[in-house]
Amino acid sequence: MTEVTLYAAPRACSLVTLIALEAAGIAYRAIWLNLVAREQREPGYLAVNPRGKVPVLITPQGTITENAAILAWIAGRAPKKRLLPDLGTAEGVPVLSDLAWFSSGIHPLLTRMLVPQRITDDAECQRLVAEYAAKLLPDEFALIEERLSGGGWWLDQWSLLDGYLFWIWNRAMAGPLDLSPYRAFADHARRMLQEPPVARAVEAERRGAN
Amino acid sequence: MTEVTLYAAPRACSLVTLIALEAAGIAYRAIWLNLVAREQREPGYLAVNPRGKVPVLITPQGTITENAAILAWIAGRAPKKRLLPDLGTAEGVPVLSDLAWFSSGIHPLLTRMLVPQRITDDAECQRLVAEYAAKLLPDEFALIEERLSGGGWWLDQWSLLDGYLFWIWNRAMAGPLDLSPYRAFADHARRMLQEPPVARAVEAERRGAN
Repeated sequence: MTEVTLYAAPRACSLVTLIALEAAGIAYRAIWLNLVAREQREPGYLAVNPRGKVPVLITPQGTITENAAILAWIAGRAPKKRLLPDLGTAEGVPVLSDLAWFSSGIHPLLTRMLVPQRITDDAECQRLVAEYAAKLLPDEFALIEERLSGGGWWLDQWSLLDGYLFWIWNRAMAGPLDLSPYRAFADHARRMLQEPPVARAVEAERRGAN
Repeated sequence: MTEVTLYAAPRACSLVTLIALEAAGIAYRAIWLNLVAREQREPGYLAVNPRGKVPVLITPQGTITENAAILAWIAGRAPKKRLLPDLGTAEGVPVLSDLAWFSSGIHPLLTRMLVPQRITDDAECQRLVAEYAAKLLPDEFALIEERLSGGGWWLDQWSLLDGYLFWIWNRAMAGPLDLSPYRAFADHARRMLQEPPVARAVEAERRGAN
């Protein structure tokens, strides 16, 4: 039985949420928005999320917006799987740092590099914004590469942070960045694809995009 | 006795952290960086935070980066003051949504409007980026205004989310936005200044800026 409804969009960070739902084993219905057609700004959707963004998760306890909060809720629904440490504990504080870094540090840079039309409606300025973001991202990627260089997951065990990293990698693949220096990060993405919940989430997104 | 060290900068969102430390009654030492002089990118500081950002909090339990995580840690150190609900509980999930919205939704827009030189090194493009961000911010502010229209705090009682809102308001004041439609938001900022921890944090920032 469907427990939750996810509003998602192809290539958006709702892929992270999909991976989390698959990993938690929560039955969900996905509703796919076409961001290029600006469906996220239509009145029907603004009634769901006045901020006009995906992902949004409709749960029996209410509507949750913003990936970090959604991931915390999902992890809390499947405590035995230990998808995230409890964010209210000392162990959870560095995880919250990482979630905030991914979502408020790296994500806006990816947006500027890949979707600069969200930053300005001037074509030449879009090109400059994308170029500048592409210069800043390698500093962030170097930090990720260093952390993953041991060949493991982001934390001691697989977690939803790995799902976020997988999305970051796949988004970066669509841009002009030279990703060859990031071998451990590339290997992480390859290993992620072999995880059944990740493979299922990627397939769900592929179907949603059509 | 000093319990923690805060790396801060005038006008940065470290003001939110300062308010939190003052509200929690945690003894701190503040080290002020000059962002205009790019002190956050100097090797000495990159050793503290490789991402070259403020705020950073050095605690007996380690270094914490990103405001959302720092606020969670501070609230956890003063549980009786109930500065935030426990983020690991169902009550905490919407708070995490709000923190993520403020930091990954509104904050990047304020940066684009007020510090567009972080987005591009081209002067004309900076002007366009700032202009475009100023067009997007009113949608966010309208949501805040609606929520505050009852005249209370963001949650049922004063919380660190009010500190974040106070910073957002003060940053917006420095820009070209017409803030006259946001009377409840303006009133919230006025009431915040009357809270002793907020007044002390503002004064600490003023001293730090000199």
